[in-house]
Amino acid sequence: MPNLEIERRFLLANDDWRTAAGASQRLEQGYLSVDKERTVRVRIVGAQAWLTLKGYVSDISRSEFEYPIPPADARHIMRTMCPFVLVKHRYRVPYEGSVYEIDEFFGDNAPLVVAELELPAEDAPFARPAWLGREITSDGRFTNAYLSRHPYGTWAAK
Amino acid sequence: MPNLEIERRFLLANDDWRTAAGASQRLEQGYLSVDKERTVRVRIVGAQAWLTLKGYVSDISRSEFEYPIPPADARHIMRTMCPFVLVKHRYRVPYEGSVYEIDEFFGDNAPLVVAELELPAEDAPFARPAWLGREITSDGRFTNAYLSRHPYGTWAAK
Repeated sequence: MPNLEIERRFLLANDDWRTAAGASQRLEQGYLSVDKERTVRVRIVGAQAWLTLKGYVSDISRSEFEYPIPPADARHIMRTMCPFVLVKHRYRVPYEGSVYEIDEFFGDNAPLVVAELELPAEDAPFARPAWLGREITSDGRFTNAYLSRHPYGTWAAK
Repeated sequence: MPNLEIERRFLLANDDWRTAAGASQRLEQGYLSVDKERTVRVRIVGAQAWLTLKGYVSDISRSEFEYPIPPADARHIMRTMCPFVLVKHRYRVPYEGSVYEIDEFFGDNAPLVVAELELPAEDAPFARPAWLGREITSDGRFTNAYLSRHPYGTWAAK
């Protein structure tokens, strides 16, 4: 059965989050489907890889199925079947009992930085650090699937 | 690494193949992507299910990655994420050392019947039974991905 991923997303007001950030991981993501209703993603992180299906539930919630696959498969799928690939570095930044995941995008999506917070419910309260900027949860342009196809660096209005 | 699926497809000239056919299996297939370059398919057969990615190599050949997934996942994915689902019965029909897989489609794709033959190479020779009809390998309308979206029963010209 699916996980329900409940997540709010934000831009960053400044760079102060970096002082609390640990080491980052490099995430490489390719997309086989970027429909709003169903995304199919291959993700490679170091020596591990996953195939992930996400279904739209609401702007905040997605149903998610994730399967580990051999990294050699993932590299081949990404190289031969994914027209859209993005690379980002992910930092984990603890703040008052929560952990924000902060993604710094590279390539055509630089210099975009996005903070994500997973929540147990759509209306769950959470602590807002001072470095947190504008909420973009309902702005579909900031989904990774959209960014893979329309990189941030090419946007006319931001 | 992917399997290379090399396959030629045919219509049936008549129903004589049925005398050599064994029991059939019911295959249910949903699609998350039906792009020619990359299809993403969920298949349920009895108590088993798979997630399959296929990449276009040529009209005859596809690169294929297939992963078993829990059937409960597959049912949920099919119900919530797959706008296009098709059902067919598959028969295995041996003929002179080869095994033809013959798919009889149901629902909106009835009364279509298609024979498939997997080959070790694109130019491999094979024996043609008298019940084999017109080859449709290069007619993209007869791919399952296309049929899921444009059922055979709705075609104007066949």
